[in-house]
Order: sequence, then structure tokens, then C-alpha cells
Amino acid sequence: CAHAQTSVTLYGTVDLPVEHLTNAGGGSLTRMPGLTGSVPSRLGFRGVEDLGGGLRALFTLEEGISVDSGTLNQGGRAFGRQSWVGLANEWGQLSLGRQYSMLFWSQTDADLLGPNMFGSGSLDNYLPNARVDNAIAYRGTFGGLSLGATWSPGRDAVNAGPSPAGTNCAGESNTDHQACRQWSLLAKYDSKDWGVAAAVDNMRGGAGAFAGLTSSSLTDQRTTLDGWVRFSALKLGAGLIQRKNEGSATTPHSDLWYAGASYPIGPVLLEGEFFKLDFKDSANGAKLWALRSTYFLSKRTALYATAGHIANSGTLALSVSNAAAGGAPNPGGSQTGIGAGIRHSF
Amino acid sequence: CAHAQTSVTLYGTVDLPVEHLTNAGGGSLTRMPGLTGSVPSRLGFRGVEDLGGGLRALFTLEEGISVDSGTLNQGGRAFGRQSWVGLANEWGQLSLGRQYSMLFWSQTDADLLGPNMFGSGSLDNYLPNARVDNAIAYRGTFGGLSLGATWSPGRDAVNAGPSPAGTNCAGESNTDHQACRQWSLLAKYDSKDWGVAAAVDNMRGGAGAFAGLTSSSLTDQRTTLDGWVRFSALKLGAGLIQRKNEGSATTPHSDLWYAGASYPIGPVLLEGEFFKLDFKDSANGAKLWALRSTYFLSKRTALYATAGHIANSGTLALSVSNAAAGGAPNPGGSQTGIGAGIRHSF
Amino acid sequence: CAHAQTSVTLYGTVDLPVEHLTNAGGGSLTRMPGLTGSVPSRLGFRGVEDLGGGLRALFTLEEGISVDSGTLNQGGRAFGRQSWVGLANEWGQLSLGRQYSMLFWSQTDADLLGPNMFGSGSLDNYLPNARVDNAIAYRGTFGGLSLGATWSPGRDAVNAGPSPAGTNCAGESNTDHQACRQWSLLAKYDSKDWGVAAAVDNMRGGAGAFAGLTSSSLTDQRTTLDGWVRFSALKLGAGLIQRKNEGSATTPHSDLWYAGASYPIGPVLLEGEFFKLDFKDSANGAKLWALRSTYFLSKRTALYATAGHIANSGTLALSVSNAAAGGAPNPGGSQTGIGAGIRHSF
Repeated sequence: CAHAQTSVTLYGTVDLPVEHLTNAGGGSLTRMPGLTGSVPSRLGFRGVEDLGGGLRALFTLEEGISVDSGTLNQGGRAFGRQSWVGLANEWGQLSLGRQYSMLFWSQTDADLLGPNMFGSGSLDNYLPNARVDNAIAYRGTFGGLSLGATWSPGRDAVNAGPSPAGTNCAGESNTDHQACRQWSLLAKYDSKDWGVAAAVDNMRGGAGAFAGLTSSSLTDQRTTLDGWVRFSALKLGAGLIQRKNEGSATTPHSDLWYAGASYPIGPVLLEGEFFKLDFKDSANGAKLWALRSTYFLSKRTALYATAGHIANSGTLALSVSNAAAGGAPNPGGSQTGIGAGIRHSF
Repeated sequence: CAHAQTSVTLYGTVDLPVEHLTNAGGGSLTRMPGLTGSVPSRLGFRGVEDLGGGLRALFTLEEGISVDSGTLNQGGRAFGRQSWVGLANEWGQLSLGRQYSMLFWSQTDADLLGPNMFGSGSLDNYLPNARVDNAIAYRGTFGGLSLGATWSPGRDAVNAGPSPAGTNCAGESNTDHQACRQWSLLAKYDSKDWGVAAAVDNMRGGAGAFAGLTSSSLTDQRTTLDGWVRFSALKLGAGLIQRKNEGSATTPHSDLWYAGASYPIGPVLLEGEFFKLDFKDSANGAKLWALRSTYFLSKRTALYATAGHIANSGTLALSVSNAAAGGAPNPGGSQTGIGAGIRHSF
Repeated sequence: CAHAQTSVTLYGTVDLPVEHLTNAGGGSLTRMPGLTGSVPSRLGFRGVEDLGGGLRALFTLEEGISVDSGTLNQGGRAFGRQSWVGLANEWGQLSLGRQYSMLFWSQTDADLLGPNMFGSGSLDNYLPNARVDNAIAYRGTFGGLSLGATWSPGRDAVNAGPSPAGTNCAGESNTDHQACRQWSLLAKYDSKDWGVAAAVDNMRGGAGAFAGLTSSSLTDQRTTLDGWVRFSALKLGAGLIQRKNEGSATTPHSDLWYAGASYPIGPVLLEGEFFKLDFKDSANGAKLWALRSTYFLSKRTALYATAGHIANSGTLALSVSNAAAGGAPNPGGSQTGIGAGIRHSF
């Protein structure tokens, strides 16, 4: 038996699909993608120690894996998904390290397809990458009410190419204290049958950062309001993510709307969701729908099939799939994607 | 005790030698190599879940370690040796991810020294790197008969320098569907005392790929036939790997012959093997012999000493050792290598 | 439960602070650093097998983690802290791989603050990086006497930027056998209440190596003598590390003196240490003091607060903190640092 000096849990998910995209820059594309399938693959180590009096010490080290090629996601970080240590008691959890922005926690219940290969991450690829380096985080739950906040003195010095997984902002600065700072806030209420969430995520630019956010005077802020409700086995979720991105000179303002439903039939879970991205004062936008059918072979193992379609307008050229980089249609074009895969958790 | 939510096994081998090579580009070379000793070092996580009715879910994540310096092999991949998830039942195993080509499975019984520092990998360094990214694999065993196949829509986007561990082929392409594709087939029969195997491994080139395989119209194909037989404690193995490599303009055709024997004396296993590489319509070629003596301190721990000699002809300049890059003799030259190390599995 | 085929232990420490530095190149700097807090963060796998007759097989694979961003330290090595396999019995332990120089083992008892963010590593950043690739190591303990040695045929081919964590020396060479070689020796005696240690660490340069050590004719040698004594709960430690660095044309000779004390008060451990670095025949030097208070929530979890101050002289511009790269004051300047964090071991 593998012994640890104290309680540490080894856990993970291995999820790998094959997908086919029409109209991928002029041709079709068949690939085994590495960023996500139904959920992103991961391997993690986490532990908790009871310190007495309700106090606990906790840590998580979790890496994101491109199972198709055995490489690491999040810009090659060893523990790019989560890497933190903290203390928790009845008043909440305080933790230090690389952690989820509160934007992530605001979406977990309302955006039903979550990080599916066809989904919200196709329209805003920060959503499945809403993590912050060097962050101080607080989260507390009081009955149904959850409150949370993060603050980072300087995020994300990793260069993951032009990707939100590593934005090449320079980290903490001694000459420009505002550079690369990030903060986020969350308020969320969940009862047994419904819930609502509101969150803000605000990141500052800095020299060398990607996506035009090259100065500390520029911010990229997302504000969200969403909710979910359950009628017997039917679950509905919907939300809005408003973005003000000063890194874009031409289309700083955008709205991402979504609404979806899920319904189980025996061992099969059916899910569908519709997304609408609209850039203000611009012809640019996109509509995306996605469906997914998941067949549970056990609690831990499932087969799934999923399909999606995107219609870009203006000069926008987003791919229907965020399962891997590349594969986008031509500007203003449409694209259909299908995928099927296996997911196993341990 | 380290808890996993379900059954996951942590396993590995740490194998490290010191080796000395004569005539290494003009001088001798003493080094602690990182790619292999008697076998390559590794650390892995694997799991299996019984889904009922004979069906099982399986995964493996296995990394290759250069223990001499604590770095990762296979071009720095986190799980460069194996990274896959799949299902298995009585009809076989179907899996997705980075996996062995069937060429690998065809050699496991007949090439007795396998990935030894002096051995077949010295004459064809694809042999210890016969893995494929983005692969769909099938393997089934029916009595003594094993059948298998892999297919990849686009292999190996990792750049491991000019090495078969990462050939910089561009992965799946939307503009050239044939680019970087790979397939392999296996038929193998093993009884208690003898076995035969046949396999084909075919990889296509693509823009930027190493070793001249820079176009999807070019293929590099290996075809093998081999076998083994046991007379009491004496085991004999022999085989041929025929290669047609369109990436080489001057010497596309080559044959790699090998024959070896192993014999245990108490806790010591003695092994010897002879290899002959012959390039058609060319003076280029090489002969290599290798010996190894392994002293088993336990089932899991062994000390070994090994020696090898290569004689290159024509302008070929292969090193007797594939335990690390570098250290080759001058063109047409000979080289002797000795090594000794320790291997521990867990 | 996570099963290993034999006994393997998963262990680690997650330690993360927030620190604030004055006078960091003209401004103050607030950051979450990644190299160390009170100790460097790590995750490791180690195993031991009883081979009978007092003989044991051992291995360790230990990675250094920048928890603030989830990345790996030691130049991105997967197991940059330790990566070795060996045998041990009553006569000592013989091991192969990436291992600590004997300089490291000489400091563990006398340098009380060890790898603290403000401490000896701020004045000589090789001290927390005293590891050698490709090393053969021996360590034996006979009563209170410990003896040890390492020898490497060629160290440290990893390029970690201009850092002692990866000095870009070319590893083993066939053309220049002396290039990049390293050796170290240790003699140490410890009784219940006092101990002394002496060690030498000698590394040769090679083409491309950092810090001026660009030829195999140049060596960088550290010689140390130190000791500790305990009076009831009060522990005192002091030492000298003399350096002759032929990689520096102007200031090859330097002395690093240190003396410190530690005293526990209930669950709190108070520690203080003073350091003086003096370059011979030069105005360059630095004085540093550091204090640390550690509150133990349990054996495995602690909160700590630490402060330090450095006064550089001449043109020296060392930062008070070695918790991350950067943040140095102007040449000849002073700097104060404060930090507080949490440490959890498992």
C-alpha cells in the first residue's frame, strides 16, 4: 500500500474524445483533442488535517493533462489547475496560491455543459481558464449562502502562447504596483431546488501581456448573474456574462447569454444549451448550440456523444470547439462539430 | 495511507547505470546516461474499474524519467511513455491516447535485451520510442493469439529535438488529411515454449517533421517477423525488421537482423544478442553485439553489468549505446561500451 | 486505497508566504514568491525494500514546486530536488543520480534558518541549490560520525536561466574530461548536545556554463566549518563558508560568516541569525540579519512570520530575500523584508 505520512488523496479524471469539425479553415478536421472532452483531464493530490477546534489545514496540487499526447496543459505548469495551501473553519477557508477566480465558482451550477468541448469556453476561452497565480482567496458558506473573493498582487507570468491559460503578464511588479493585479468577488445562494449567483472578475494588464492588455491602466472585467432551477428531474440553467475588455480597441463591450436544460433517462443524461455572444457597436457576434448525451457505465465511468454548431457574424471566427487550439472557421463562418469519448474518474 | 477515491496503482522503475564508451568522436566518454540502463526509468499511475458483465474501464498515465538529472524524457512530456483511457472485455481492449505502436508489442518476447543501453535501440532509435500520440488502439488475446491495431489521425506534435521521441510532425491537419497519420498492425502467437510475431508500423510525414519525413506523401514503414523458443531454461529469440523510409533520399531500404539467447544460473541471468543492420544499395551498415549479466537481489531489485561493441561501415556513425544522446564514433568507426547499474521497481 | 506493488511513500511540504520588500530597485515590492517561504515546497515519492542481511534498496524522486503559480523549480526539472536510486547497509549508502552535494548536509544543523526566505541563500544562492546531476554519492554514519562524498563526471546540463538551479554546464564531455566535473566531501560529528561539520564542494566549469565558469580550467570551491550547541532549550549555531570562485575575475575570494540562535516558547519557535559576506580585496560585502517566529498548529502545520534586513556595500546588490528571483536593491543599497505564511507537510 502506498503510504503517506498523513492523509493525502490521489484523484483524477481521464477524459478523451475523438472529434470532427466541418469548415475548419477551408477543410474538415478530425482530431483527438487535448484541452477537454466532456471535462478536462486532471491528476491531483489533496490533503486535509484536522487541527482541532473545527480548524483544518488543506492543500491541493492538481495538474491538467493533454491525455492525447501525454503533455501538460495550462502552459506546461506542473500543477496548472490548482496549487494552493490554506486553513478552514466554520467561518470559511483562507488559502494562498494558484486558484480559481470567483468567476469559475459562479458558473458551476448554471452553465450546465460547463467545460464541454462545445460550450461556453468556445465563446470565451477565459471561462475554462479562470485561475489566478499568486492569489489570496477566501470562500465561506453560511447555510445556502456562499461568499468569496480573490486578490492577486500580480498574476500569470507563464507564457502559454497567446492563450488565457498563461497570459504572460509579468507577475508582481516593483515599479508599477497595479500591473497584472487581479481581484474577484462572489455571492451565491443555493437552495435544494434553485440557486442564483453573481460575480465580478477584474484583471489588469501589464507589459507583455497577451490580448492587448499591455498596460496596467487597462482592465478586462467580467460581471455575471446566473441561476438554476429544478422541476423534478428537469434542471434548467441560464446566465449572462457581461465583459468590458479595454484590451480591445474596437470591441471592448460584449454580452454572453446562455440557457440550458438537462434531463436524465435511466443511465443516460441528456443536456442541451444555447449561447449568444454579442459585441456592442459591432457586427461581430456568434450563436452556438450544443447537445450532449452521457451514458453512465458506473458512477465513475461514462461514454458520451456531443454535437455543436456555431454561426459567427461580422468578422468573428470562433471555433465551435474549445477542445484544442486551432480549427476555426473563416471569419463570419459557421461550423458544426461532433465528438464522442470516454471519461473515467478515480 | 494514501487514499484514492477508487483503485489506482502507483508503480515505477528506477534504473541508473554508469557507462564508459571508447572512441566517442575522438575521445572516450564516461557518463551517467538518462534514457535507459537495462530498462528506461518510469513512474506511473494506473487504474482499473470493474463495470460488471466482464467489462472494465482502464487508464494509464506513465512518465519517463532521466533519473541522472531529474528531467522528463519523451520530449519533456509529463506522461510520455503512456497516456490513455479505455474499455476492455473478453473481446479485447479499445483505448484512446498516447500509446505503443504495435511494433513495440511485436518485439517484447523475441528481442531479448529489449531497451538495454547496448541493443536494438542503438541501431534504430525508433524501437524504444514506438509510441503514437492521438491514437485509437485495439488489442485482443484469444487463447495464444494476440491481434492488435493502432490508428492516429495525426501524430506527434512535440518537438524533442531531432529525436524519434518527439518528431515535430504537426498533429492532425485540416488542410492535408494524410499528414502525420500513423497506423500499425500486429498478429502474435505464443505457446508455453515458443512464439511468433508479425507487425507493420507505418507513419506519414508532414511539414516540419524530423528525419526528412517532411511531406505527407512520404512514409516510413517497418515490417517485422520474429520468434522465440525455450529449451528448458535456455531461451532463444530472433527477428528481422525491414524498413522502407522515404524520408531518406539515399538509403531508404534497410534490414535489421537480430538473434539472442538468455540463460539463468541461480540468481544471475546471462543474456547475449547479436544485431546486423544493412542498408540496401549502400556501403552503410553496422554490426553490434551485446552481453548482459543481471544479479537479482530480489524480485524487484537487481544489479547488472553490460557490454557492447559496434562496427559501423560506410559512412554510418551509430553509437553502441542508446542510453543517452551523443557519444557516437566517427563515420565508419567502431566503438566499445561497458556499463553497470542498479534497477529497482516498485 | 492507492496501492503500490511495494512500499512507496508519497510525501511533501506545501509552504507559501506573502512577502513585502522595501527598496526593490527603486520601489517596494509585494509578492507571493515561489522558491521558498520557511522551506521550499516539494512533492516526493520514496521507497525502501529490505533485501535481507541488513541490505536495503532505496530510491527518492522529489520535485520542487512553485506553489504560487503551480510551476516546477530547479529549471523545470520534474524531480529537481532529488532523483536517485541506491543500496544501503550498516557501512553506509551508495547511490546514483541527482543528489545533494555534501555542502548541503554540512549546513543542516548549524545554519538554523536554513532555506528561509531571508537567510544564507540570500547571500549565496548556491546554498539552497547544492545539488549535483549525474552524481555517485556515499554517506555513512558510525555512531555520531558521518562521512560522505559525491563525484560527478559532468554536472548540470539544464539551463535554468542564470541561476545555480541549472547552470548550463554541458554534462559529461568526450573531448574534455575535466569539464563540468564536481566533487564534495563531508565529515560531521554530532552528539546529543553539540556537533561540528566540515565539508568541501568543488565544481569545474565548462563551455556555456553560467557565472563566468566557462572553462574546465576554472573551479568554484566552497570550504566550510561549522558547529552547533544546545543549552537546555536554547540552540546556538555558527559557521564559515569560504569560497574561491575562479569564475569571478574581480572578486574570487569571499567569506560567509553566520551565527544564530533558536528558542521555543510553548508552541512558538523563535529564531534569529546574523550573516556577514565579505569579498576579499574589494569593497563589496553584505550584512544580513533575519528573525523568524513559527507557531505550530500541529506537528505538520505551522504559521510563520519572518523579517530580514540586508546592507550591501561596494557595488554589491543582493536582495534580502531569496524567496523568488528579482527584487534586488540598487548597488550598495539596503533592503528590509517581511513575510508571513503557512506551511503544511504530508
